[in-house]
Amino acid sequence: MVHADASNFTEGSTKAEIWEQAIESTEALLADQRNWAESNLANTASLIWHALKSMPEPSNHTNWAGFYVLDPRASKQLILGPFMGKVACQTIEFGRGVCGKAADSGEMQLVQNVHSFPGHIACDGETKSEIVVPIKVGEKVVAVIDIDSTVPSAFDEEDKKALEALAKTLGPACDW
Amino acid sequence: MVHADASNFTEGSTKAEIWEQAIESTEALLADQRNWAESNLANTASLIWHALKSMPEPSNHTNWAGFYVLDPRASKQLILGPFMGKVACQTIEFGRGVCGKAADSGEMQLVQNVHSFPGHIACDGETKSEIVVPIKVGEKVVAVIDIDSTVPSAFDEEDKKALEALAKTLGPACDW
Repeated sequence: MVHADASNFTEGSTKAEIWEQAIESTEALLADQRNWAESNLANTASLIWHALKSMPEPSNHTNWAGFYVLDPRASKQLILGPFMGKVACQTIEFGRGVCGKAADSGEMQLVQNVHSFPGHIACDGETKSEIVVPIKVGEKVVAVIDIDSTVPSAFDEEDKKALEALAKTLGPACDW
Repeated sequence: MVHADASNFTEGSTKAEIWEQAIESTEALLADQRNWAESNLANTASLIWHALKSMPEPSNHTNWAGFYVLDPRASKQLILGPFMGKVACQTIEFGRGVCGKAADSGEMQLVQNVHSFPGHIACDGETKSEIVVPIKVGEKVVAVIDIDSTVPSAFDEEDKKALEALAKTLGPACDW
């Protein structure tokens, strides 16, 4: 299969079908490709972005999908990884904003309205809701999946489950 | 300035104006941010993508914009870096395809029709033309900027000059 075809989702597919294809494609792309985490994250960001953009309302209002990873040169700090979307903040301290909270707590964060989230970091003023899922190796958070939407309450339990499945695949599949 | 605003280009701007803004924004984003090449490349890929998408025909037909970097674990091999677009090939040997030729020769490659380029690697069957600009530290190629378009002859001398300016900025600005 040509690589780009993994980003093509059949028109009219359900959200469940699209997430299923995205997870399967991620697993296929990661096979024997643990050699560089960044490479895997770059392709996975593309898959997540095109999956969400192919879904019905409100998922298709995604305006950013990507990763923040542990900064190798500073403890308790995330640094921008591969993503699809507009230019973003390059470093985020643990505990700051939605990504920082997910990294610090090790817990998924589903924020229906970012403006009511204490300490929200506005990389893009258009963002209204956000979901952040930590990626772990054992108990240690090594990165987070971060997805933003221009509409409030864009993400639900189905997204949470799919992203947690992706995080579980990515954690042990890459050398961080 | 909110980070995402760097990706917004005024409607009706000329190609020259848009490239100028993209280069200035890249320089601003890279200031004091040499700490992780990948982070700089992720934001620069976003800037290049949104710049091209904001330009008149044929530049707006860009379907992939990003980076391949030297594989730290294999000599004479590139590995996928941050990008905007559909899922892409993860490794490219020096000498193979347009990216591999740019990395091997250290020379910019402007290919008006990829199907007539010997050994072209079809990550995406929709790609018709491609420009690849090496990023160097001294004489050593450390990465390449790779941009694809769905139309033939999408790139010209103006793109070449702008991308070479970006490559010159990126080379010494990042720790590779």
